[in-house]
Amino acid sequence: MLKIEHIGIAVKELATSIPLFEKLLNSHCYKTELVESEQVNTAFFKQGDTKIELLESLTTDGVISKYVDKKGEGLHHIAFEVADIYTEMDRLKNEGFILLNDTPKKGADNKLVCFLHPKSTNGVLIELCQEQPNLLS
Amino acid sequence: MLKIEHIGIAVKELATSIPLFEKLLNSHCYKTELVESEQVNTAFFKQGDTKIELLESLTTDGVISKYVDKKGEGLHHIAFEVADIYTEMDRLKNEGFILLNDTPKKGADNKLVCFLHPKSTNGVLIELCQEQPNLLS
Repeated sequence: MLKIEHIGIAVKELATSIPLFEKLLNSHCYKTELVESEQVNTAFFKQGDTKIELLESLTTDGVISKYVDKKGEGLHHIAFEVADIYTEMDRLKNEGFILLNDTPKKGADNKLVCFLHPKSTNGVLIELCQEQPNLLS
Repeated sequence: MLKIEHIGIAVKELATSIPLFEKLLNSHCYKTELVESEQVNTAFFKQGDTKIELLESLTTDGVISKYVDKKGEGLHHIAFEVADIYTEMDRLKNEGFILLNDTPKKGADNKLVCFLHPKSTNGVLIELCQEQPNLLS
């Protein structure tokens, strides 16, 4: 694990949460991005070398929608940047952690991502992420 | 807000959670500290320029104990480092956020701290913290 890349926060509506977090953090949302694979709309804020990611569900039966219905809006996950996601997934699997996907998938912000099941991590949903090489450059 | 200073995670027992997070983060817990004012035992891990703080209740009726009973172990709060906690408390109060303490109190890790009520911050418990000058130096 290199650093905390971002903290994910589940919200009902970006339209109200973006201005709220702009007031709270006293900084502007610098990017929004739709993540098709997760059916979420995301909004990002920089905080030091870490980011805050707000997550709004695009569907009523998506994971974020279900989370908000069950637990309310709030802290959803921590994402750790890793140097090599395949090596880190192997290490954690061997340590007994439960991976939610066997191979990395495409997440927001041009990342390869893998989630760990909260029941193996003290109730915390953990994301591993690694920046993908930019195929266009 | 200067940066994310730490992320607080509520746990039942540091005795089991410290080795779990050492395996997860692949790094050692560098400090434990008892915080009398909050009736919690804390354990710290470094992650880039941010920290992970595990929180174990010392009493069965403390805030962390009640949180774990109600919601289970997991993400508890985000702490932001601020340059001047009094100025930031005034700014946030004027923006309509609800402060849980009117004056800063002594937190873990030699900090002055103030919490914001989650109902004003999209369900996220927010801590403001400012390093205290070392009175012994």
